[in-house]
Order: sequence, then structure tokens, then C-alpha cells
Amino acid sequence: MYMSMQQKEIFLKHLNEMNHYKQALELMTWDRHTSIPNDGLQDRLEIVGFFTEKLHQLQTSDKMVNCFEQFLSSGDPILQQAAQVCKTTYEQKTNIPKEEYKAYAMLCSESEAVWHQAKQEDNFKLFEPFLEKIVSYKQRFAAYVGYESHIYDALLQEHEPGLEVKEIDEVFADLRPMLIDLLQRIKNSEAVVDASLLRVPFAIEKQKSMSLALLERIGYKLNKGRMDTSAHPYTFGINPNDVRISTYYDENDFTRSVFSAMHEGGHGLYEQNFGTDIQHTLLAEASSMGIHESQSLLWESFISKNKLFWESNQDVLKAYAPQEIQKLDLETFYRSLHQVSPSPIRLEADEVSYPLHIMIRYELEKDLISGKIKVSSIPEAWREKSAAYLGVTPSNDTEGVLQDIHWSSGDFGYFPSYALGYIYAAQLYESIDGALNMEQIYRDQNLHLVKEWLKEHIYQYGKRKTPLQLLKDTTGKGLQTDAYKTFLQDKYKGIYHL
Amino acid sequence: MYMSMQQKEIFLKHLNEMNHYKQALELMTWDRHTSIPNDGLQDRLEIVGFFTEKLHQLQTSDKMVNCFEQFLSSGDPILQQAAQVCKTTYEQKTNIPKEEYKAYAMLCSESEAVWHQAKQEDNFKLFEPFLEKIVSYKQRFAAYVGYESHIYDALLQEHEPGLEVKEIDEVFADLRPMLIDLLQRIKNSEAVVDASLLRVPFAIEKQKSMSLALLERIGYKLNKGRMDTSAHPYTFGINPNDVRISTYYDENDFTRSVFSAMHEGGHGLYEQNFGTDIQHTLLAEASSMGIHESQSLLWESFISKNKLFWESNQDVLKAYAPQEIQKLDLETFYRSLHQVSPSPIRLEADEVSYPLHIMIRYELEKDLISGKIKVSSIPEAWREKSAAYLGVTPSNDTEGVLQDIHWSSGDFGYFPSYALGYIYAAQLYESIDGALNMEQIYRDQNLHLVKEWLKEHIYQYGKRKTPLQLLKDTTGKGLQTDAYKTFLQDKYKGIYHL
Repeated sequence: MYMSMQQKEIFLKHLNEMNHYKQALELMTWDRHTSIPNDGLQDRLEIVGFFTEKLHQLQTSDKMVNCFEQFLSSGDPILQQAAQVCKTTYEQKTNIPKEEYKAYAMLCSESEAVWHQAKQEDNFKLFEPFLEKIVSYKQRFAAYVGYESHIYDALLQEHEPGLEVKEIDEVFADLRPMLIDLLQRIKNSEAVVDASLLRVPFAIEKQKSMSLALLERIGYKLNKGRMDTSAHPYTFGINPNDVRISTYYDENDFTRSVFSAMHEGGHGLYEQNFGTDIQHTLLAEASSMGIHESQSLLWESFISKNKLFWESNQDVLKAYAPQEIQKLDLETFYRSLHQVSPSPIRLEADEVSYPLHIMIRYELEKDLISGKIKVSSIPEAWREKSAAYLGVTPSNDTEGVLQDIHWSSGDFGYFPSYALGYIYAAQLYESIDGALNMEQIYRDQNLHLVKEWLKEHIYQYGKRKTPLQLLKDTTGKGLQTDAYKTFLQDKYKGIYHL
Repeated sequence: MYMSMQQKEIFLKHLNEMNHYKQALELMTWDRHTSIPNDGLQDRLEIVGFFTEKLHQLQTSDKMVNCFEQFLSSGDPILQQAAQVCKTTYEQKTNIPKEEYKAYAMLCSESEAVWHQAKQEDNFKLFEPFLEKIVSYKQRFAAYVGYESHIYDALLQEHEPGLEVKEIDEVFADLRPMLIDLLQRIKNSEAVVDASLLRVPFAIEKQKSMSLALLERIGYKLNKGRMDTSAHPYTFGINPNDVRISTYYDENDFTRSVFSAMHEGGHGLYEQNFGTDIQHTLLAEASSMGIHESQSLLWESFISKNKLFWESNQDVLKAYAPQEIQKLDLETFYRSLHQVSPSPIRLEADEVSYPLHIMIRYELEKDLISGKIKVSSIPEAWREKSAAYLGVTPSNDTEGVLQDIHWSSGDFGYFPSYALGYIYAAQLYESIDGALNMEQIYRDQNLHLVKEWLKEHIYQYGKRKTPLQLLKDTTGKGLQTDAYKTFLQDKYKGIYHL
């Protein structure tokens, strides 16, 4: 179909306008996490609400519908995909009746406050009626959105387009026994792996300089970004030329700030390297939440926790780390980064326990949405799964079912992406190793070549490819757990002498 | 006239919308000065342009005209004044034909770049044709705006509503001989006043802590603000609950950062203390540029450069300053803050020379606009005035007529406010001393009472009172130079033993 220059210009202008509001909102998010004075929050919320409403109007206007319908089968390689994103957004914004969504948003806002109190008082009963209402909204919303086989698929789509319960169930069923077994063998191992060797005073300014030096090595550009401090590490992609990350500091545990910086640096590399051809088109966003997470985990877990990474970055350690760290031999340093000790709390989990935490929540939220389990039975079910998977039973609901805010904010269908990120990352790392020879890359301090590979195969496409397309085009395969299982087993076999 | 609740609500909603755009734009300005990565600038300019255009549409819409016309004589004490501000803004935005303004804006943007080059190369001829065109635009704009006695009055109105050339000429004619005489007597004095005693290494982190401690003493609230670093000190009033200041650091001259912080802190106090009844109404802005400047100068020049201020803040010096500073006795410390040595460059000027710099530019720009002098004669005229007023002749145009960016950006009518700020501040300081007894205030560390006085008499009103109304209501007088002359003469008589 032939589209006139004028039609193109109008569509591009609309896309650009939405992009302007999005950039302003992202800047305000960054500001809220890193800079805003306390008393400024109230006014800011009002402005964020105003701009969000303006953006919503653009996303759902008749003009916009007219635009995207014209371009859905236009044959223009980029605008056709941009039209698809606009259509999906339009449907997400309009398939739920406005009044119902408003009531739900108010419920969530109240519910978050109640969750805070319930967590503080270890009182699940307080939160229970709110969770019941939220689940029932989510069930209705899923019906509005529609699904083919499982009701939870409707919620998954928002975060991981193209993936369904069936596939995730298979993958998790495959991983679960391996992880439980690995945890058990580590527990039985007599090897000494002691993270406390790294917990020595380390000036925050020096931690910061060390993180910045490592970020430079992996190719994160400070002329297109900056690193701030915030309560939770975060990446703020305002546009590809302005991608800010944040980290946090524990003066007695530099691993928190440095590996958070590597994690957010991975997200940041993705956002700094979207193709220039898709900027301002709404396609300059991550393919999915899981793919975004795969980029942070690739750089954090697969690369910056690799022994060879630290061998080739000894000069950075020498420049910034205190004597107590420098005097550790490389093997001890590396092993200390990998102490495994299951905790009931996800945010304190090691690499081996982490996916099991995800499975606990995924299985329970899936059963909540499908009606297989009642809200009142959740605390007990949580304890049982925690004991069965992690070998630890939370001593109360604060450490158990109440530990995370997500359900109280209505975030369902979001957790699986954390685990999918690991699996994608393992598959990608395997492909990169095949193409570039990672051992040589580390030895030659050539990590920028990894960034270039990712730019060519992943980053530049933004939303132009789905997660499964990206996997297929880079690995020739679909979602597969082999690489991830091999990675974990090999790594911990070495560390714990299994 | 009776206005219905509905009319009120509509007007308030419009005011609030404009306020939302203004807040977003101010946040972006802050970000541009303190945080944005280099490569992010280009995209940001586009977004700023987009939101500025949105704001312009609101300011000049028929809806807005309809609103303010309804409220101009409504009798509602606040909305009537808000309507007046809207009307003035509307007139400013519409009395210049749109196409002409656009051409002018493009000329300025080009002209700034040319000015940079001309300054670098000491080549006024390069800049001359641009300045000629800008002056001719300004003359036409003044005609569109209209004026009664002097064409320059039209340009003054934007910055100092209610003040005219006639009044400023009188005031400057009164001050000029006194300042020239004072400079001469200081030059002839044999007293030793040596600023270099204070130029010792002083860690930037400690300079920052010292500034923050002093800002707290004067009542600037960090729960409603923050202090960042930028190339030029600045105050960013996003809203009264979020007023950020910035300063800059010279490791070998703490006076730059500390007195910049006091200066911006003065601006910040004003912006943090607009009345809650005028928030979101566009009245929560400074009465004029000169009044804003009077607040920064009151706290910088009149209060934080007072000897008693340092006597009562010895503990702050003790806590942060290096030994070389601490060992100076109070008298020497105080005198060293006040070395007078005229420079051809305004930004390096001391308190006594500064107003003379303002007069040079004011007189020349007034004559340019009225056509009394040609652009080509300006460099020579500048040198002559500099020699006559300051006793120094700039060695080239880079140090002379090309030193400041303002003319190249089309900023005419703006400089007098800097000098008016000193005069207002002196009159206010005299009134405060009469009401509160400043000596006692310093001794009791009660500077917050000064802030309370200013809040009651100046800050809370925002744009509700003009500069002359504020003067009249606080001092019972109009614009008068006596207090300012007495302040300068007494201060420097003591320091230079005149």
C-alpha cells in the first residue's frame, strides 16, 4: 500500500509527541528516585498524573487509531511495526472500561499502604481482603484482554509477548529438580566459600570510582549517561543519548554497589544502543521485560562474576580496593563472590536459589488467577513451597508471602520474566562464546566486542523483534534450558568441589 | 461582579495546567545545568521546544482570554491579580507578530554563536552586523509594546514593571559620583586588605558542608530544596516545595562557593516562601527581577558579609575551614572578604565597582535603542566609560564590550535590575534593622527571624505586589539611594580607614 509523505509526516509527528511525554515522565521518574526533595513529592505526583493523562489521550485518540490503521499493512518496514505497537498500546489502554480501571487504580494505591502495614505487623489477615479484590479485578481484566489456553496468559502478554503458561511450566518443571538438587549438593559440600572475606570497609567514593571504571570497560558511555545513588538500583532510559543508572552503597560490602552497577550497566547498554532508525518511533524500547533482564544478567552474572573478568581487571581492583581485598588471591576472591546460602527472602537470594523464589511466586499467582487456590490459603502454601524448594521455612509472613510489594500494586504476570532473563542470557552467552571466544575476549580486555555483538544482534532492534524471534535469530533455537543448566552446574561444581 | 463556582474552577484548572508545564520546564532547566549527559542535550532541546510551544498555546488561547477577561474586575482578591498576570503574558506573547518573533529568535540563536567566536577572536566587527539587526528588532518590538516617554521603557517593563528610564537615570546620576569617589579614595588608601589570605586549599566536600550549614542558619530548607554544582550558580524554583540552588567550587578560594551559596540561598528563600494561597496561580513568582536580586544580595552582601555574621558563626568556620583560615583573627578575616580592585570584567567585580559596570552597559544599551549611538561606535564608547567610571581601560574588546553574552541573546533592559537589587536590598535591610535590631539578631543567632520578617513583608506576596508597592509597604518610601550609599560608605570607611 502506498502511503503519502504527508501521511508519514503526520504519523511520525504523533509518535514524536508521545515520545516527548514519555521522555519527560522518565526524567521525572529519575528525579524522584535520585534527587527530589521530600516535600516536592506531592506536587510532582500531580504533574506526573497530568502528563500521564496527556499521554493517555494521545495513545487512545481517534487521530491515533486513524494513523496506526493506515500503517498496519503499509509495508513500510519501521512504521508498520510502530503501528503495531500503537495498536497494542491502544488495546491495552481501552479494553478495560475506564471507570473500572480507575476504581482498580485507587484500590491498588490503598492496598499498597495496607500491605506496608501488614508486612510491618506480620498480619496477613489485614491484607487478605485487598488481595482478594485485586485478584478478582485481574481475573476480569484477563477476560477483557482475552486468551486462548490459560487465563494467566493474558497477564503474561504485557511483560513477555509470545510466551504462555504452557511453555513456562515446561521450562520450570525442567529446571526445578536440577536447582533443588544443586542446592542440596552445595549444602552437603565441605568446601569453604566465605563471602565475609569481602565485607571490609571500602570508602564509598572509591566504590563509585571502581564501578565507573568497570562500566567504561563494558562499554557503557558516560557522555550518554550517568550513575547516581538511589534506594533501589535502577535504569532510567530517557532516550538512547541519555540513559542513567543508579546504584546503592554499603560501606562494608562493595559487592552490592559494584554488581548492581554491572547489572544496571547491562540494562543501560541495551538502552544506549537502540538503532537510530527507530528513535522517536516507540520501537526504541526493550523487546520484553525478560530480554531486558537478560541483558542485565548477562553482564552481571555471566560476565562480571566470571573469574577471567577479574583476572583481566586486576588493575581496577589495585586502583581502588582496600588492602584486605587486594591481598586475596584470585581464586579466593572469585569463590567469595559465590557463597550460596538460601534465605526465605528473594532480595537476599544467591544465584542458585533465586529462580526457585521466582517459581514459588509464579506458581502461586498462576493458581490465584485461575481460581485453583484461595487467597486465605496462600500463606500456608508459601511456607510449604519455600520448605520444599529452598529448604528454608519463613519464620513468619513478613519473611514469606508478604515480603514483596508486587501483588499489592496489582503486578501479576511479571515475575516469570526474572527467571526467563537468566535462561535467555545463558543461551545468548553460549552464542557469543561460539562467535567470539570469551576466554580470548577477557584476556585481551576486549569486552567492547561483546557489546558490539549484542548491538548487532539484540540492542539495535528494540521492539522490532519479539523475545522468541531474537532467540531464534541469534541461537537458532527456541527457549531452551540446557545452556542455563550447564552454566550453573559447571560454575558451582568448580566452586563447591561437587 | 459575581463569578460562579464553575467559572472559578475552569480558570483555576487553566492556571494549573500552565503551572504544570512551567514546572516540567524548570525541572529540565535544572537538569540541563546540573545533570544531563552531554549527548542528551540535542533531544532535550527538542522536548523543551515542544513543551514551550504547548505552554505558549495555553497562554494565548481564546479560552484563556475568555477566562482572564471574566476575572479582571471580578473582585476576587487573588484571581483578579492572576487574570492580570495572564493578560500581561498574553500581550507580551501576542503583540509581536509571530513570524517576526520567529525570525528574531533564529537571529539570536545564530548571533550567540557569532558572539562566542567574536569574543574568542577579539573581533567586534564579526559581531557588529548581528548586533545591528538585534537592536533594530528591539526597536520595532518596543514600538509594538508601546511606551510613554522613552523607548527603552518598553524593554524595562518586562523585568522591572513600574520603573522607567527617568527614575533610573536619576538614581544612577545620584550614585555614580559617590561610587567613583569611593573607588578613588579606596585606591589612595594605604590600608592593607588582602583577599589572598583566604585563598588556601580547602577541600570541596568541606566547602559544601560549610555552605549547607550556613544555609540552614539562614532558613533555607533542604526538605524543600537541594544544592548542586553547576558552571554558573543558579536558583531553580520548580515550586515552593522544590527550590534547588547550585554553586561552583574553586578548591583554592572557598569564598566563591560559600558566597554563591548565600546569594542563591537568598533567591531560594524567596521561592520557598511564596504564600500557599497563590500557589499554582502564576502569582507564585518574584515581583520583579530586581526584587529577586534584592533578596540574593540582602543575604549575600548585607548579611553574610557582615562581621557579626562571622562572629556568630565561628563554630561553622571551626568545623570546616582549614587551619590557615581559622588562625586569622575576625577583623582580618572580615577585611579580606572586602578587597576592592576594579577590573574591566563585570563578573570579577567587587561590591563597589559592580554598580558602575551596570551603569556602563545600561547607558550604552539605552542609547543604542534610542538611536543616539551607532553600533560601530560602541567599543570606543565602552572603553571611555570604563576608564571614566572604573579607572581601568579594557585592553581589548574581549575584556570590554564583548565580555557578556546578553546583547547577543537579545537581552536588553535587563541589566538595571542588578543595580536596583542593591538599592532595594539596602532599603529593606534598613527597615529590618529598625524592626528587629540586627546586632541582636546576629548575637542571638536568630537569622530565622529575618526570614520570617521577609516572608511576612515580601516573600508571601509573590507577584501580588509590584516592586514599588513592596518598597512603600515596608519602608514607607519610594526608590531611594540613601540607605545604599550609607551602607557602602560606612562599610568601606571602616575597612579602608577612609
